[in-house]
Amino acid sequence: MPKIVVQVMPKQELLDPAGKAVQRSLAAAGQGHFTDVRIGKRFEIATDREVTAELMQEVAQLADDLLSNGVIEDVISIEVADEAAEALEGEAE
Amino acid sequence: MPKIVVQVMPKQELLDPAGKAVQRSLAAAGQGHFTDVRIGKRFEIATDREVTAELMQEVAQLADDLLSNGVIEDVISIEVADEAAEALEGEAE
Repeated sequence: MPKIVVQVMPKQELLDPAGKAVQRSLAAAGQGHFTDVRIGKRFEIATDREVTAELMQEVAQLADDLLSNGVIEDVISIEVADEAAEALEGEAE
Repeated sequence: MPKIVVQVMPKQELLDPAGKAVQRSLAAAGQGHFTDVRIGKRFEIATDREVTAELMQEVAQLADDLLSNGVIEDVISIEVADEAAEALEGEAE
């Protein structure tokens, strides 16, 4: 079944407390050369339909309406997952 | 500054309650053709160093140690963010 990947990140101008906490712990561990960390979400959406432009438009709409909060987040990419990557992910277990 | 993107997903065989909730609400809204939703994390890590194989190895290590829980999650990709994509993300606001 095809899988569509939607990626959502906090808006650039917003403070990301969780990301800040990770960055501080890296700095404390001597890895201060990692100067910023931001944490977002990755959605994998499986569908039993063929992937068409219309279906991608539907995913874009639900990404805005359901998967992200437009006030604090940006939907930064919507892509059809590459079958090969999927197979790889299957082996990663 | 270079940015490295780490993506983490729940292990395939694990139930993803949050993803299930999203899938059920899609089905309730008549979008049952989205048969499964899984939700993971996307980390963007900025660095003031040049990206080398050694630095990527360091990121792989911290992805395992700090950014994911090996019992329930898989690190599925570690990539250098494409500068162009970054510029695009900047415009997306």
